[in-house]
Amino acid sequence: MPLTKAEIARLRSLQDKKHREDLGLFVVEGGKVVTELLSAHYPFAELYATDGWPSAVRTTGLAPQLITAEEMGRISHYPTPSNVVAVGRIARRELAPPALDRGLTLALDGIQDPGNVGTLLRIADWFALDRVVLSPDCADLFSSKVISASMGSFARVEVFTAELADALATCTAPVLGCDLRGEDVHALEPLRDAVIVIGNEGRGLTPAVAARVTRRITIPRFGGAESLNAAVAAAIVCDNLRRSG
Amino acid sequence: MPLTKAEIARLRSLQDKKHREDLGLFVVEGGKVVTELLSAHYPFAELYATDGWPSAVRTTGLAPQLITAEEMGRISHYPTPSNVVAVGRIARRELAPPALDRGLTLALDGIQDPGNVGTLLRIADWFALDRVVLSPDCADLFSSKVISASMGSFARVEVFTAELADALATCTAPVLGCDLRGEDVHALEPLRDAVIVIGNEGRGLTPAVAARVTRRITIPRFGGAESLNAAVAAAIVCDNLRRSG
Repeated sequence: MPLTKAEIARLRSLQDKKHREDLGLFVVEGGKVVTELLSAHYPFAELYATDGWPSAVRTTGLAPQLITAEEMGRISHYPTPSNVVAVGRIARRELAPPALDRGLTLALDGIQDPGNVGTLLRIADWFALDRVVLSPDCADLFSSKVISASMGSFARVEVFTAELADALATCTAPVLGCDLRGEDVHALEPLRDAVIVIGNEGRGLTPAVAARVTRRITIPRFGGAESLNAAVAAAIVCDNLRRSG
Repeated sequence: MPLTKAEIARLRSLQDKKHREDLGLFVVEGGKVVTELLSAHYPFAELYATDGWPSAVRTTGLAPQLITAEEMGRISHYPTPSNVVAVGRIARRELAPPALDRGLTLALDGIQDPGNVGTLLRIADWFALDRVVLSPDCADLFSSKVISASMGSFARVEVFTAELADALATCTAPVLGCDLRGEDVHALEPLRDAVIVIGNEGRGLTPAVAARVTRRITIPRFGGAESLNAAVAAAIVCDNLRRSG
């Protein structure tokens, strides 16, 4: 059955954060990302595919609604449409305060680049952190760029949204922040419980979050670069935490 | 003196790799990147600024040619023009084969994303590697995206272009490649001389380069992600190499 004009308009509108929030839905497009998320058993609500989508993949999870290439061209967010589009329900989890006391948490303070947020989810997944917390001004978790950059980790990592300074105020676990003058990351002892806070790409941590850092950690520098990017710094801290753990 | 039409057309044309190669020139735009490179004493050939560019910065290096905001709008590569544009001379260094035998080299095999190449230059700079070698199919070193993402490291890191498989054929230093089944990166002994090869974002190392790897290195994985991104993997290997060094 062909898609109605209203269905096409609805699917197209999901590129916009405002419409996503209004409808409580998000969209991802492309065989790679959709397959990654279906393989991770992500519970999509709707799936649209053209004949070109490999049938071997179709058998996983939800049965796709077959649409024509012309319809795909109309719902696609890209100049070159792919052959599959999936729609999921937005569910943002609020953080209950004691949650940060146990396990390893990556807390992102205003990371604005969707590619960086996705890469940080992938790092949290690789190192099996217990959760990621996004401040409300991070790139939107449900944007297609964040989800694509996470390479499937979007489906595997527990993500919460919270005002970080509030969430950290009562946290009993050590709060690690990267700093040029702190403890050597190579000397970190095993930590079963910790929060790693990572600041915005340009301005670093907000003062309210920086005030909650209980241990300042330094990645030793040998050359001339002033800083490392957010995802790289997070990964090095995680590798050292897991090494000593 | 106002810019001529020909000068404006020439400056605009430098967004294109083909025109950059024809003219042997590249362009960077924006106060942040231009200031970073001037601070690192990068020898620009031309500098254009509007009155809005802070005079405190102007005194560093080359004196800028003052242009109007309208002229800046015409030479700018961005929808919102900045207040400074700098032009440099393209100089690609060919690698003489014994060069890889000594010191630490980061070799990039087909890294296509300009942001990743820039981030990798920044990592090489942070860890004071001796050089970076780009395969000919990497993102263009002289594209404004690579230079911006390098955060000034473009001016500090020695970069060469070479066919990697050929360059590695006669290399006497160990050639480290990331692999899911190799030696634990945490057990790396000190290495004064080494080449770290990093593969393309999607396909990894080309077979000819993979055949030159003499030590396969594994970053221990704890969770579900299938891989780490190229820059993150490179940074973790560098941190471990420098730790043991």
